[in-house]
Amino acid sequence: MRNIRLLLAYDGTEYVGWQVQPNGSSVQSTVERAIRELTGAPAKLVAAGRTDSGVHAFGQVANFTTECSISCEKMRPGLQSFLPPDVVVRNVDEVADDFHATYSATKKRYRYVIYNNRAPNPFVRKYAWHCHAELDATAMHEAAQVLLGTHDFRCFESQYPNKATSVRTVMEATVQRHSLWPEWSRSQSPTQPLGSEGPFLFFDVVADGFLYNMVRAIVGTLVNVGRRKWTADDVRRIIENQDRSQSGPTAPPHGLYLVHVDY
Amino acid sequence: MRNIRLLLAYDGTEYVGWQVQPNGSSVQSTVERAIRELTGAPAKLVAAGRTDSGVHAFGQVANFTTECSISCEKMRPGLQSFLPPDVVVRNVDEVADDFHATYSATKKRYRYVIYNNRAPNPFVRKYAWHCHAELDATAMHEAAQVLLGTHDFRCFESQYPNKATSVRTVMEATVQRHSLWPEWSRSQSPTQPLGSEGPFLFFDVVADGFLYNMVRAIVGTLVNVGRRKWTADDVRRIIENQDRSQSGPTAPPHGLYLVHVDY
Repeated sequence: MRNIRLLLAYDGTEYVGWQVQPNGSSVQSTVERAIRELTGAPAKLVAAGRTDSGVHAFGQVANFTTECSISCEKMRPGLQSFLPPDVVVRNVDEVADDFHATYSATKKRYRYVIYNNRAPNPFVRKYAWHCHAELDATAMHEAAQVLLGTHDFRCFESQYPNKATSVRTVMEATVQRHSLWPEWSRSQSPTQPLGSEGPFLFFDVVADGFLYNMVRAIVGTLVNVGRRKWTADDVRRIIENQDRSQSGPTAPPHGLYLVHVDY
Repeated sequence: MRNIRLLLAYDGTEYVGWQVQPNGSSVQSTVERAIRELTGAPAKLVAAGRTDSGVHAFGQVANFTTECSISCEKMRPGLQSFLPPDVVVRNVDEVADDFHATYSATKKRYRYVIYNNRAPNPFVRKYAWHCHAELDATAMHEAAQVLLGTHDFRCFESQYPNKATSVRTVMEATVQRHSLWPEWSRSQSPTQPLGSEGPFLFFDVVADGFLYNMVRAIVGTLVNVGRRKWTADDVRRIIENQDRSQSGPTAPPHGLYLVHVDY
C-alpha cells in the first residue's frame, strides 16, 4: 500500500466545502472521483482542514492510500485530466505510512482578503470581501498582535464547544495593504513598497490549529477596529471574556484561503 | 442635454463583447438597460474600444446623452444597483458636448496577462492565459521593443483591411514578471522587486489605436519568442513583411484587459 499526498488549490465558489454534504458537490468527492477514474479503485481522502462552503484553498493537503503503481510525476497530470478547472493538483508525492494530513499537521496558514474601495472590483467579487468603508489597516494590524501566543479562543468559535479544547497558539498575525494587479491604476506606483498601499487588505494568520469559523470571526472583529468602532484593547477584552456574542460578525467565506500547511 | 461619461470595469467572461450581438448578452446592452431603468429613458452608449467576446476591461470609457438631472455622484451607485456584479461603474462625470468616447481618445493602454506555471491556477483560469512551457520574459520584453514607434501593423490585424489605415504608433510595450498574490508561495519573497520574478507575465502596451485582434496577435507572436522559437529580429521581419500568416497565433481573449484610455 502506498500513501499518497496531494497539494491542492481550489476555487471554493461552486462547492459545499471540502467535506461530502447531502446538498451539493464537495471538493473531497470531486477529487475522490478523479482518483477512482485514474486508479480504477475507490479511495478515501483525508485533508488538513475541512474548508467550509465557499472557502478557497491554495495549499490544501490531503492523502489517500492506494495499490496503484502510477508514478507521482504521472499522477499529477493524470488526476488533473479528471478534474474540473476549479480544482487543481499542484503536487503529488509519496509519504510514510503514518502520515495523516489532518493529525500530522503542525501549523496552518490562512489568508483573508478584503477589497477596500468605494466601487467593487468585478475580477475579485468571488475572491475577496468588498468593504466600501475606509479601513485603518495600521490599527487592524496592531489589534491583530493581541492574538499572538496561546489563548482560549472560544470567543471566535461558532457552535462552541465542538472540539476537545478551544485553546490554540497563534504564531503570526499581520494585516497589510497590497495592490494586487500592480499599476492597474495611475495612482499606484510600481515602486511603492508592498504592504503600504493599495485597495487589498491581507490578513495573514498562522496557528497550530483553528476553531470552527475562527478566522472569519477574527476578521469580522478586526474590521470593526478598521472602522474605528473598536481598539486593540477591546480585542484583548473580547478574548478575555470568552463570549462569542461580544466579538464581531463572521466575515463571508469567499475572502478566505487555506494557504499552507506545515508538517 | 447632458453628456455623461462612465468609467467601467467588467469581467468579460459571460459576455459576447462590448457590442450588441444577436447571440448573447453584451456589455453595451447591459449598461444601456441600467441607464434606462435609472433615468426612465432609452440611451445609446458609445465606447472607447469595442472589446471582443471574453475580453475584460478595467478602464473602459463610454458616454451617453441624457435629459435626466440626477447628479453624477448619485448616478454611480444608482446605475450599479441595476447592474450585475460583473459590470462595475467606477466613476461618472459630466463632459463637454463634443466629447465622444471613441473619437476623442488619444491613446489606449491594454494589458495581457499570462500565467506561466506547470500546474494551472484555479483563481485566474478566467483572467489569464495559462502557458505551462517556461517563457523567457527578458527575450519577450526585448522583442516587444521592436513594436515601438509608427509602423504598419497589418501583420497583427485579423480580417485586414477593416479600418482606413493599419498604421499605428506604439508608445510603450513592456513584458514583466509579477507575483500576483504576494507571498502565496514560500518560494516567493515579499521583498523581491516587482518585475523580476513570479508566475505572471504582464504584457503592457500603449498606442494611439489598435487594429482588430492586434494585441492578441502580438501576444501569440511574443510567446513564440518566449519559447525561443523566434527572436526580436524575427518580429522585426514579420512587421516589415506585412503578412498576417507569418505572425503568431491569436492569443485567447480571457487574458486581455482594456486598462486605460487617455483623452
